[in-house]
Order: sequence, then C-alpha cells, then structure tokens
Amino acid sequence: MSINSFKLKTKCLSTQARTATLDMLHGKVQTPIFLPVGTQATVRTLTPGDLDEIGIKMILCNAYHLYLRPGIDIIEKAGGLHKFMVWDKPILTDSGGYQIFSLSSFRNITDDGVVFRSHLDGSEHRISPEYVVSLQEKLGSDIMMVLDVCPETSARTGDLKRAVKQTSEWARRCYNAHNDTGQHLFGIIQGGTDPELRTLSAREITEIDFPGYAIGGLSLGEPKATMWSIVDHTIAEMPGNKPRYLMGVGAPDDIFEGIARGIDIFDSALPTRVARNGGLYTYEGRKNVKRSVYKDQFGPIEESCGCFTCRNFSLAYVHHLFKCEELLAYRLATIHNLYFMNKLVVDIRDAITKGKFAEFKEQFLSKYQPTDEDRRVDQKSRSLDAKRQKQAPDFK
Amino acid sequence: MSINSFKLKTKCLSTQARTATLDMLHGKVQTPIFLPVGTQATVRTLTPGDLDEIGIKMILCNAYHLYLRPGIDIIEKAGGLHKFMVWDKPILTDSGGYQIFSLSSFRNITDDGVVFRSHLDGSEHRISPEYVVSLQEKLGSDIMMVLDVCPETSARTGDLKRAVKQTSEWARRCYNAHNDTGQHLFGIIQGGTDPELRTLSAREITEIDFPGYAIGGLSLGEPKATMWSIVDHTIAEMPGNKPRYLMGVGAPDDIFEGIARGIDIFDSALPTRVARNGGLYTYEGRKNVKRSVYKDQFGPIEESCGCFTCRNFSLAYVHHLFKCEELLAYRLATIHNLYFMNKLVVDIRDAITKGKFAEFKEQFLSKYQPTDEDRRVDQKSRSLDAKRQKQAPDFK
Repeated sequence: MSINSFKLKTKCLSTQARTATLDMLHGKVQTPIFLPVGTQATVRTLTPGDLDEIGIKMILCNAYHLYLRPGIDIIEKAGGLHKFMVWDKPILTDSGGYQIFSLSSFRNITDDGVVFRSHLDGSEHRISPEYVVSLQEKLGSDIMMVLDVCPETSARTGDLKRAVKQTSEWARRCYNAHNDTGQHLFGIIQGGTDPELRTLSAREITEIDFPGYAIGGLSLGEPKATMWSIVDHTIAEMPGNKPRYLMGVGAPDDIFEGIARGIDIFDSALPTRVARNGGLYTYEGRKNVKRSVYKDQFGPIEESCGCFTCRNFSLAYVHHLFKCEELLAYRLATIHNLYFMNKLVVDIRDAITKGKFAEFKEQFLSKYQPTDEDRRVDQKSRSLDAKRQKQAPDFK
Repeated sequence: MSINSFKLKTKCLSTQARTATLDMLHGKVQTPIFLPVGTQATVRTLTPGDLDEIGIKMILCNAYHLYLRPGIDIIEKAGGLHKFMVWDKPILTDSGGYQIFSLSSFRNITDDGVVFRSHLDGSEHRISPEYVVSLQEKLGSDIMMVLDVCPETSARTGDLKRAVKQTSEWARRCYNAHNDTGQHLFGIIQGGTDPELRTLSAREITEIDFPGYAIGGLSLGEPKATMWSIVDHTIAEMPGNKPRYLMGVGAPDDIFEGIARGIDIFDSALPTRVARNGGLYTYEGRKNVKRSVYKDQFGPIEESCGCFTCRNFSLAYVHHLFKCEELLAYRLATIHNLYFMNKLVVDIRDAITKGKFAEFKEQFLSKYQPTDEDRRVDQKSRSLDAKRQKQAPDFK
C-alpha cells in the first residue's frame, strides 16, 4: 500500500469541494467522509451490523480512552482493535491529545512528553509522542494521529505559542517513531483562533511529510464565523494533494461549509450525542422528539428517510420511548441521525462528481435551519462538564 | 377462534410437565412458554427484530404503565398495541393490579373499583374492573388479565382475606364486561402464602369459566420452599384442561420446578433485569460479567451458546462495555439471557415430548448453581425501591 494513497482528480483545485479515494489497511473509502465517534471501541448503542446497515464505512476511536480502559495490552491480545470490537472496516484513532488537555484534572509537559492523571481514577500516567505512536500501532488502526497539545479556546497567546511549538516538536518525533506498518500517521495543526499562529503551525506541520493533515483545536466554543475564518486561513497553507481532516466538526451545515473549503474528513460526536438527547435531524433542521406535539404523530420521523428507524417505527413510538427513558430510544435515534449524516455525505459526493455541489449546498441550506449558536455552545460545554463530573467524582 | 383453544394431550396428567398449543388472535404458540417482559411496549434495549432472532414468540406488556404513558387513546389511534410497538406476534397484557398495589403511593378500594395516584406524577386515577377490560380490549392484546388485588407478602390474614374476596368479585365483573373480541381473559388466583385462602381463591376464580388461570402474588420475597408449596396447593384446585400461568416467576431453575408441577406460562423481568446488571446465564449458573477475571477472556460468554452476542463478541469485549457503562452492554447481555431462557423452554418442550423431562431436569439442575436466595430477595427489593424512587421524586 502506498502512503500517498490519496489520489486527487488533477483538475480539482486545492480549496474547493473535491472527492477522492483513501486507501487503507482495512479497505478503501471515498471522501468526503464523516466518521461516527466510537470513543471506547463502540459507537454508542450500535453494533457493527447496525453501522453496516446505515452505510458507515469508517469510524473513529480514541487511543487515550482505550489506553485507560480496557488497556492497550488487552486489545493487542484480542488481535487488535478491529477484532476486539468486531469491525472490519477502517478505523481512525485519535491520539488523545485533546482528551489529556480537556478531561485530565492534572497534566504537566516534560522534556519527554506529558504526565497526566486519569480522569477515571486519578492514577498518574506518563506518555511520550513515541509511546503514543506505539500504542496506536498495537491497536492497528488505519489512520493514527500524532500527539498534540490542544489548549482551551480561551488560552492566552503565550500558551498558544508554546502549544504550537510543542505540537510541531512532538509531530516530528511521532513521524520518526512510526514504523512501516502500513498505517497512515496524520499530523495535526494547532494555533487556536490566532491566524498567525495557525500559519506558523500549518507551515511547520506540513513540512513533515505526513500522508495527511488535520486541523485540530476548533469547534471548542468559538463562534462559527471565527472557526471558518481560521479554517480558510489554515487551508491556504495545506497541500492540495493530501487529505485534510477537520477534527470534531460535524453538524450537517458544517459539513457543507467544510467540504466547500476542501475538507475531506470529518468526525464529531454531535449527531450521536444529540440523538441520545432526542435531537433528530431532518432536512428542515433538528427536531426535539420529546416535544408533546409528537405524541400522536404516527408517520416516521421524516417521510423521505430510508433509515431502519423511519422504515419501521412511528415518531409517536420514538417519542414514547424517550418520555419513558427506554434504552431503545437512544438506539433508534442514533441510527436515524447517523443515517442522515451518512446519506448527506453520499449525496454530496454524488453532487461533486456531477459538478453540482454548489447547487446542492444552496438547496440544502435554504431549507435547513441550523441549531441556534448559543444553544450549541451551551450544550457542548454542558456535555464536557458532565463527562468530567461523571467520570472523576472522588479524586483530586 | 375457540376460547377453549388449549388442547392438552389426553394422556397428560393435570399436575405434571405437559405441552400444548395456545391459539390466539396473533398466532399459535407452544407451551410451556416464557414471556419476556416489555412493560412499556418495549422489551428493554431490543427491537422486535432482535426478539425474532432470539426466537421469542410471545411477550408481556403492562396495561397500567401504558394507561399512564403514552395513554391507551394514543395506542388505540396507532391501531393497537401490536402496531404501536411493531410486534405482530401474541402479547399478554397484565392488568396492573400488582403495579397499583406496589408502585402507587396511595390507593383506595371503593365500591366501583380503585382510586390511586400515578407513580409518575401523583395524578389521581379511578379505574374499575370493567374499565380495565375495556382498556385491554383497546390495546388488542391476545391474553388480557383481570384486575386483582395483590397485597404484600407481609400482609395480615385479614387483609389477605379481603383481597381474595375483592379479587373474586372483580374477576366476575371483568368476565361479564369482556366483549367477544377474540381476546382471551384470564382469571388470577390470590391468597398470599396462606394455604386456606389459596384454596378459597382458586375455587372461587375457577368457578368462573375463564379460558385460563393465573397464580398471582408469589415470588414477592417469600422463601422459595414456601412459594412451591403454595403453587402445589393451588394447582390442586385448578382444572387440568386449561392453561396455568405462574406470574412473575422466571429464574432458570424455577422454570423447571414450575413445569414439573404443570405450569404452562411464565413471565419475569428477572432475565432482562439481571442482564442489565451484568448477570449472564450459563449452564453452570449466573456469571457476573463485570468481574475483572473476564477482562482477557476472548472466547464467548458460553462456548455452546448460539446467541447473537456469543456468535459475535468476546466475553472480554462485553466486560469492557459493562465497565465503561456503554449502552451496547445492556443490549448484548439482554440478548444472551433471553436466548438462554428461550432455548431452555424449547429444550424442555422437546424433552417433554420425548418423555424425558425428569431426566433433563435432573441433568440441568445438577450443573446449574442457582443464585443465593438472600441475594435474590435483596436484589428484588432494591429493584422495586429504585423504581419507586426514580419515578416518584417530587410528590406526596
């Protein structure tokens, strides 16, 4: 397998919507692609068979979470992450940089790497860029991510600068540590919402010959206009012949905006998280299925939807399951939202191929009512707080 | 459809293991049969397709819960309970007598019926035996249950007597109220653990020409020896040519004991509830999948098991999902336990047909280690407390 497996159509400009093939150990996928998040070796509520039925071709897991639980040695003994979770298609593993800097109650950057306390039990762990690569090699993921430093959106310029410097240094060490396993190691560009630091980070990271590059540290609470301005600014420094991955972004409207700028890969826990809260995607926007107005709606969530949930169950039934907090509710909602996201990117790929992306984008966005921005930021922040509180109740 | 659809083999004695066919609106099933509990129009975590795959032919729902939420009118508008929950095989609905007397914070028996407060929001409701029949007729369940009075195990003789009297009176009113819908209405025998009251109740209830009879008010914390002694005592008064239903009993060893005494129908939330707590059935007894000894067991939960979970996933993976409190854990565990229960009754039917029930029972019970009785009683009591607390936080 070639490390330069990303074959772009030559006529495609570097910063416009584009399609390509990603060739990986566990198969090929078409881009643009949206990766559902399966942090702990499971896309919450779903089996691999459910994912297949939805049409999902690739997922994301998290090396940090899997390192803490069940432990990489367990997964290695199982024959790797694919065998452990019984998913035979490509997996991208995030390194855990973001989690170490957002979930840990304590972390300290040393010459060697980073020391942090587990958000689960407070135990102390030391990891280095080299170690993070070796962990992901043991997992056997198709795309691995370098260890990066991901500061909060509110970080001061000095902290952001240090984070960019550290990220570049660690990226080089990861690159050098990576063995010829057939796995692809992607670099991550940081720099917060500072355009100059983004330029600096993009130049330093893209100097290293990674097979693909990610934009990290966005969608962390900054206004959307700021996010897209930073994406524009960063992409200008990224090569056109390699895949670009916008980390943690995945609202339906964001997918269009990202693809329009030449982004190839997206991941986000948003579609699955909002599903479990009763937020169901439709072509008019997100619908809160818990609203009592749906209690006697005996049609599907959306008439045109072909997902398992819409083919079989009424909105009234899904509403009932949510009101009763029945576990099946979360599964049926997750299936619907992932089907919606997957169909969206499939349709977008089709539109790009036919040269009709701009038309399709305009048509979609003219009908789709995005969720209010304040509410989104608030939801994201509450979700992170809940995670920290739930998982770290008893230690300092 | 004949109301006397339960055709017993003539050579079968009335109080020994037996097989028969139950003919209902939504199809025929073979007895003995175990009904998974789908209280709120869903067998927790599973779709109807999952139930089909497991081999489940009939389930139980609860008219009391469905009356409170979503409301019988909603289900009637959906075209009945089968259409609402998308399950086309037989359903037995319990009337809710047990729930009114175990979950409600307040209830008062009147001349007409019973006044109680909802365990969900404290709202006051009045129902009569006639109304309970009409609700179940609207649900369209295949087997309906009469409204009964189910006192606590600790109830005094005076209370038990009144409960038996009331249950008989209500049973007759239910019988008279039932229209010719093709649904079967079963009577319920009460009497607590008092042998004389059981005899009285059994005689009074079986005087009414129901197509089947249930033994209610057992498995509520009394010792197992007491329960089986009362079952023996009660069955002696029940006709041999009609189905006998032992309500709320369903541990694997109990199924054998019940069938040995001529019980035909069982239901219990136990297999699904313990599954969600990580208690997985094997032929050696219940296994707690959360124990760390399973973290690197890469074989299935049980080698010989043919369930979806065991065919696809390792014990180590299920253990991991439980440790992470991932929602998929509860589904995979539920599938395993229901498959175990269903295969058990299928094998028992086969053994009965071949005249080898006693042999099969001895063989099973020689290997199967039942869960410690104290622990069972404690678990049952905690489960009921949790339900009361969870669902009634804010009202008096």
